[in-house]
Amino acid sequence: MLMGELSRRSDVPVATIKYYLREGLLPAGVATSATRAEYGQAHLRRLQLIRALVDIGEVPVAALRKILAVVDDQDASVHQMLGTVEYQLGPRLAVPDGDDPDWQAASQEVDDLIADMGWTVTPFAPARTLLALTLAALRRSGSAPPGAGLRAYAEAMAGLAATEVASLAPDRDSAPGPRAGPASARAPETGSRVALAESAVLGMVLYERVIVALRRLAQEDASARLFG
Amino acid sequence: MLMGELSRRSDVPVATIKYYLREGLLPAGVATSATRAEYGQAHLRRLQLIRALVDIGEVPVAALRKILAVVDDQDASVHQMLGTVEYQLGPRLAVPDGDDPDWQAASQEVDDLIADMGWTVTPFAPARTLLALTLAALRRSGSAPPGAGLRAYAEAMAGLAATEVASLAPDRDSAPGPRAGPASARAPETGSRVALAESAVLGMVLYERVIVALRRLAQEDASARLFG
Repeated sequence: MLMGELSRRSDVPVATIKYYLREGLLPAGVATSATRAEYGQAHLRRLQLIRALVDIGEVPVAALRKILAVVDDQDASVHQMLGTVEYQLGPRLAVPDGDDPDWQAASQEVDDLIADMGWTVTPFAPARTLLALTLAALRRSGSAPPGAGLRAYAEAMAGLAATEVASLAPDRDSAPGPRAGPASARAPETGSRVALAESAVLGMVLYERVIVALRRLAQEDASARLFG
Repeated sequence: MLMGELSRRSDVPVATIKYYLREGLLPAGVATSATRAEYGQAHLRRLQLIRALVDIGEVPVAALRKILAVVDDQDASVHQMLGTVEYQLGPRLAVPDGDDPDWQAASQEVDDLIADMGWTVTPFAPARTLLALTLAALRRSGSAPPGAGLRAYAEAMAGLAATEVASLAPDRDSAPGPRAGPASARAPETGSRVALAESAVLGMVLYERVIVALRRLAQEDASARLFG
């Protein structure tokens, strides 16, 4: 298809598509003349991935570039890819001074929880920092050290993550995971490594929003029951 | 305390405190002369709440103003307050045309899930939109309709939300909830309605980050086990 049709089908303006091409986020089309190029399903899929990550995942363009580079890297493993996504998602926040007591206590709490859960997590995983920053802010505001509560959250996430990550195993027959299986039934080329990688990245980022939205809905319901 | 000490103790620059005062996010201090005012624990707590919501919750200032107004409204119920927070958190995204098939299917999926879970949720709850937008983006990209998967996420969130919201009940003896209990042990004035309201808002917003961070850690661990 030509760029006009790519724009119509993806609902992304031509100027935005040109920007993604210039930024190297979208691979060039196949030139058919000096001023025309032909785009295919892979371009459409990539555009939809970019829009979903930017609009819903609120992923900055610089992070997007690094995420897409590992999606396109034939030698990258699923583990490297998920790790790149985690690192690129941040947090982009300054860490408090080492002698801030709330930060120290929160960091220790995170280390203890990870040990307690038996999780294998690198020492510099940004999600450790995000968790410790959040727990430090809760402490600073006089809110509770969540104690047993935090462990309940960790267990809920561990259960969901185990199923999700298992569904990314490239060699499995379409497991009943939330993404890999039915996707391959929908688009014929989704068996390819790039399509699986795109699907994994999308799931990792967008399911954070799914979880947040579900939590808000569940809270509204619980609040309606108790206080409504 | 004077503004300089408020700044030191909150780690918020004086210029930023003045901005919050001008914007009405922070109540004025008690004037002791034409150029000096005295600030108390409530100001310090409010500043820490604002910083946590802005820095970690990434709440925009306009939303913050409406959230703080309901925190300070003596007549607002817990249910109204949580509702205000949910509405102010967005999403701030345009909804697709009504005839977009992915959007239609995703909206139906959200309605079905809410009915299935027996949740009491207003028809215009923004979290419905956030969830439907996210599911529509997953569909558009050829990713799976999560089916049974989505229900598992909803159940995990329902379990956590029930405990959280129950811990906000103002009349309860300090229940073992994640926030209300130990907070009142830490700061003597936290029994006040405003302090409880601040704690509820902070918990609602910051626990979204806690959950996201824990999910990333759990995924890193699951990925290390399977693919590392």
